[in-house]
Amino acid sequence: MSPVIELTHDLIRRRSVTPEDAGCLPLVAARLSAVGFQIEHLRFGDVDNLWATHGDGGTVLAFLGHTDVVPTGPEANWASPPFEPTERDGLLYGRGAADMKGSVAAMVVALERFVTAQPNHGGTVGLLLTSDEEGVALHGVREVVEHFGRTGQRIDACVVGEPSAKSRLGDLIRVGRRGSLSGTLTVHGVQGHVAYPEKATNPIHSLAPALAALTVERWDEGNADFPPTSFQVSNINAGTGANNVIPGELVALINFRFSTASTADALRERTEAILRSHGVSFSIDWHLSGHPFLATAGGKLREVVVGVCRDLCGIDPEQSTGGGTSDGRFIAPMGAEVIELGPVNATIHKVDECVSVADLQRLPDLYLAICERLLL
Amino acid sequence: MSPVIELTHDLIRRRSVTPEDAGCLPLVAARLSAVGFQIEHLRFGDVDNLWATHGDGGTVLAFLGHTDVVPTGPEANWASPPFEPTERDGLLYGRGAADMKGSVAAMVVALERFVTAQPNHGGTVGLLLTSDEEGVALHGVREVVEHFGRTGQRIDACVVGEPSAKSRLGDLIRVGRRGSLSGTLTVHGVQGHVAYPEKATNPIHSLAPALAALTVERWDEGNADFPPTSFQVSNINAGTGANNVIPGELVALINFRFSTASTADALRERTEAILRSHGVSFSIDWHLSGHPFLATAGGKLREVVVGVCRDLCGIDPEQSTGGGTSDGRFIAPMGAEVIELGPVNATIHKVDECVSVADLQRLPDLYLAICERLLL
Repeated sequence: MSPVIELTHDLIRRRSVTPEDAGCLPLVAARLSAVGFQIEHLRFGDVDNLWATHGDGGTVLAFLGHTDVVPTGPEANWASPPFEPTERDGLLYGRGAADMKGSVAAMVVALERFVTAQPNHGGTVGLLLTSDEEGVALHGVREVVEHFGRTGQRIDACVVGEPSAKSRLGDLIRVGRRGSLSGTLTVHGVQGHVAYPEKATNPIHSLAPALAALTVERWDEGNADFPPTSFQVSNINAGTGANNVIPGELVALINFRFSTASTADALRERTEAILRSHGVSFSIDWHLSGHPFLATAGGKLREVVVGVCRDLCGIDPEQSTGGGTSDGRFIAPMGAEVIELGPVNATIHKVDECVSVADLQRLPDLYLAICERLLL
Repeated sequence: MSPVIELTHDLIRRRSVTPEDAGCLPLVAARLSAVGFQIEHLRFGDVDNLWATHGDGGTVLAFLGHTDVVPTGPEANWASPPFEPTERDGLLYGRGAADMKGSVAAMVVALERFVTAQPNHGGTVGLLLTSDEEGVALHGVREVVEHFGRTGQRIDACVVGEPSAKSRLGDLIRVGRRGSLSGTLTVHGVQGHVAYPEKATNPIHSLAPALAALTVERWDEGNADFPPTSFQVSNINAGTGANNVIPGELVALINFRFSTASTADALRERTEAILRSHGVSFSIDWHLSGHPFLATAGGKLREVVVGVCRDLCGIDPEQSTGGGTSDGRFIAPMGAEVIELGPVNATIHKVDECVSVADLQRLPDLYLAICERLLL
């Protein structure tokens, strides 16, 4: 069994359902310590994080991953037990196989090979792992970055191992992510009896024209790297259950996935202006999950990763900013260039999560090539 | 104590929380039987109804009431116990004092006086009481009317004792009621992740423009007796609770209170046409609680009741079709003219429900005068 497959097996066997680490981080720390990495265990709240570095000063290239996994769902629905790594037809099955214990194993194997072959490489190479990515993500990379702010630790380039590929390794890399801005909108009305609407103010009716306007608003046109900003109402609730009572209040949850063509402040202001222009009596609590981030075209890491995919996978990768957000949103504001490169994401968070054994065996070569091209 | 006040006390003491009758109907039946009424006990499901008649053939004038009351709410919030009739400052307190044990007592006293003084009156006078008006109202007057359909019983004129007055007896009578049409609207979408709206169909967004159109639609202009038809969305619910999931379905409860200027069929059709015109994928379950009904201006009962208010209360009553609906909706389709005349409704369904003792003492005179003017 190749080293990356063997380490992936070892990691899958550990039941690290978020935010549990179940011994994954100590395993990685021991491996990297053995080849000369400096190890920092960063525990915040109930969450373990690991920062392992090799080299000193210069360009800091960090690999970023997580060892926690999402719950399995009903284990009986799995063809093989989710924490028992099982290979069938060229696929390795197990919870976390694709998201992202396979990538973590590939990073470890690549770093071992890099520092063994190039003990005096330029710059600094590091591995940052958290066990709080799939959960609330409060004590994971978010707090690590705050800690780095206090200690002066810098990251210049960051490769996130999130499963990015569509159908084969190297066919898609994430060069950025949209921002996510949420709001809890409360529309204030006056409760009453449906037979006497003139004595009540129905918040459902008050909101209706503004809601229609919000759903057709063109927030921006996107840009070369981002699709247009999207707006979604994920929840709307009003009413007492009775059909003869006009409710006094309506609550809706709204969410923007926004490009670098818009700012969170501008979206907040425009939303509230549309509500005000329709005379809606409202209050709104905003929550910004993450600003958008982008490794701009022509940036060094982006060029390197695209080149590595071309040279080692023989494919010109799609350079996408689609999908949800990732822990890269915490790293990018440090001034780092952030790129996501990992295996096929088709089965993540599902029953029978799996990864291609062939893809996984090649992934250390890709991560190693990135180290070589950036730090030698 | 006058006979009407004494009987009201007796009725309030009986804890006839809907659909319980708690002995009210047998008490009334015994009183009317003693003065020559024929008594029919009509039990449907778990509900007692009473039909007492005097006379034979000719114009059938029916008084309509209910002996059930709404729950008291927290008894500790009442100034005096809700089932202990208590007089203070000219007001008689107790659950059902105004809605509508006072009216029932007044009807009984008026009918006793009428048939005692006029044993050979023309036509037929009757009292129809149910103990299922405040609840689901399935086994009350609705079923009595179905029974009358089978037996051939006719009602030509019907006086409902529901509390109609605003500030003093005779200041307002109901000459009709709006219809009530409800719908449970389900909007079909496709669930998905908010980060991938192009793979989902958000039913909140699908409905928004149609909802805005429905809330501003002018359904009709009303007419001389009815205000314009009103449309209210009483409940709207969609969402999984999570802010990152586009829901697959939205459910809204809608309600029309509609005038005789519209029909239930036309409202159904127009609602569905508006939804279709906005491309909404929906299904809708309609429930018609009652068609609108009206005692047309110039009708005999309406003229008599207006005259009685003028002559006995010295007031020209407002002739209204406002408010909710009443059991009159079941009687009107028999071809009966229906008018509602009762005490002040300011405290009904509330803590410390009460009725003016002076108004209640005069109410039998009004009901008696109606008997005399219609049947002599």
